[in-house]
Amino acid sequence: MEILMEHGAGGEKMFQFLREFVLKELWSSGEVGLDEMEDSGIIDGIVFTTDSYTVKPIFFPGGDIGRLSVSGTVNDLSVMGASPIALSLSLVIEEGFSIEDVSRVMRSVRETCLEAEVPVITGDTKVVERGGVDSLIVNTSGIGKRSEYLDRNFQVVKEYTGRVYKWPLDSNLSPGDKIIISGNIGDHGASILSERYDLSRIESDVAPLNNLVEKCLKIGGIVAMKDPTRGGVAGVLNEWSQKSKTGILIKEENLPIREEVKGTCELLGIDPLEIGNEGKIIIGVVEEMADSVLEEIRKNKYGKNAEIIGEVSSDVKGVVMETVVGGKRVIPPPIGDPVPRIC
Amino acid sequence: MEILMEHGAGGEKMFQFLREFVLKELWSSGEVGLDEMEDSGIIDGIVFTTDSYTVKPIFFPGGDIGRLSVSGTVNDLSVMGASPIALSLSLVIEEGFSIEDVSRVMRSVRETCLEAEVPVITGDTKVVERGGVDSLIVNTSGIGKRSEYLDRNFQVVKEYTGRVYKWPLDSNLSPGDKIIISGNIGDHGASILSERYDLSRIESDVAPLNNLVEKCLKIGGIVAMKDPTRGGVAGVLNEWSQKSKTGILIKEENLPIREEVKGTCELLGIDPLEIGNEGKIIIGVVEEMADSVLEEIRKNKYGKNAEIIGEVSSDVKGVVMETVVGGKRVIPPPIGDPVPRIC
Repeated sequence: MEILMEHGAGGEKMFQFLREFVLKELWSSGEVGLDEMEDSGIIDGIVFTTDSYTVKPIFFPGGDIGRLSVSGTVNDLSVMGASPIALSLSLVIEEGFSIEDVSRVMRSVRETCLEAEVPVITGDTKVVERGGVDSLIVNTSGIGKRSEYLDRNFQVVKEYTGRVYKWPLDSNLSPGDKIIISGNIGDHGASILSERYDLSRIESDVAPLNNLVEKCLKIGGIVAMKDPTRGGVAGVLNEWSQKSKTGILIKEENLPIREEVKGTCELLGIDPLEIGNEGKIIIGVVEEMADSVLEEIRKNKYGKNAEIIGEVSSDVKGVVMETVVGGKRVIPPPIGDPVPRIC
Repeated sequence: MEILMEHGAGGEKMFQFLREFVLKELWSSGEVGLDEMEDSGIIDGIVFTTDSYTVKPIFFPGGDIGRLSVSGTVNDLSVMGASPIALSLSLVIEEGFSIEDVSRVMRSVRETCLEAEVPVITGDTKVVERGGVDSLIVNTSGIGKRSEYLDRNFQVVKEYTGRVYKWPLDSNLSPGDKIIISGNIGDHGASILSERYDLSRIESDVAPLNNLVEKCLKIGGIVAMKDPTRGGVAGVLNEWSQKSKTGILIKEENLPIREEVKGTCELLGIDPLEIGNEGKIIIGVVEEMADSVLEEIRKNKYGKNAEIIGEVSSDVKGVVMETVVGGKRVIPPPIGDPVPRIC
């Protein structure tokens, strides 16, 4: 059998491939290991994550592969309730690639690291002959430690609901919990599309969110967090629904989305719920704390357009959306990715 | 300016490129950061390393990209005096690659992880279109903690020499220290060459050496360690000579090398001192402990052919080899890599 693009697209096909042909063969361990398919693993109190970035083009409106790599890895640690400590940076460069562009990407790595206050402490560089790789692949792995606010956050959860958690996992959601999105959806995917198809420029949302996440944890009441990258909002909500064994009901009218993103998606026949974001976070929070957490997110420069988009509900199966015209529509888990190589 | 193969080849050209165009732009930090260009960085007591593997072919005599990735990352932690805790595993796969071969590589990852007793706890998978990458690239990053034997090891160093160290760094060497190689040189590079040029089969030495390293540290007296991968033995000794600001004198007659590796190198006009090893370690040890450490290494299945190959000496500049015919020859730092994509 041959590898298809869908096997790496963040949707159902990928999870199936990983379970059957990758995870089954590997040996994992730790407090949170590979089997959980979370954004990070946890062992000996260290939160650990990795991502290889193959985005095309390397430079896009609002960012580049450098800012994307640092932000993506920082965010994967943050949504596990960890404060990032350090990153690794590994480059695979195609022979003939521009040295000046390598430096330009490195400066972007530096700026994003300074913004997130997370240094790069180890690295690796490989060069392969022309055609061996498409210009530049970047891998960033990251380590973090348990956020100082995580215990307090879960204390609030326990006070209101009696539920006890140690980490904000995909399986923690329970009916009644509210779902918050930290801002407009689809910006990153639409940005890549606008650059690739020469449409009107759309800025990517790519940003490190560790600061925003820490502030939310300080407020308290959060049960789960995830960054909707490959697979988009539809992917995250379906993963939550499956792992928490409960339905999720969202309202279309509450979904924040920029007009130009909506336009680009309509033009290309793509569902904005399925395309990737790189500077957004979806938060599951106990009902009583939803407004306080929303208010805190909106204070942050990356959270101005945050909204409560729905709630966990046992009245529905899977993920269901109430449309603006009053109907209901099932949001299925994405099969593949409508836009390949966005991250 | 364009990226050349030499910019990723582990030699002088690479270090120059990294200093001028990569490290200068980045923000690093930590107890051991990027500027030291060690095999791992260290921060908050965590030893952290990363490597992307682009070896071609993916399957070679004695190993594959899976065993190579796990061994390489485990060894990079070990030579810093760390006990590996966990690995990350990130795959970039070309569309059309065989799913069965992915599973075969994963089984090899599993076997090597079990041998090294280090689990994979987090991962990532990307698929790119045909031509976007050459079949499969694997990144493994790793985290480790300070070896329980490191303090005791350095206590022995202090007793004999008065020198005080915290980590086994490239800059620790001092005249009189003995240089040990843990076995035959050039096996991995020659294996890749034998496969690529359809010569008689040579087995790679690829292996995880954390067990061997721990046993050596338990004996004590080690000041520096390094695995001679890209750039080979010549690369390591020159890096040590430069960073420790002292000469190194080795004896050709003491260099362990298999006849078939020597033959392959002669056939292709390649210096076996410059080609990569993936299951060897070079150790700098105080004179008084050299025989004890050598004896311990030889007890290990990966150390049977270990030899003391020379010593740190202020009588020479850079790296010098006494040849079997009685002459002396300078071993310059490799400019590039005589065999591209061996790791």
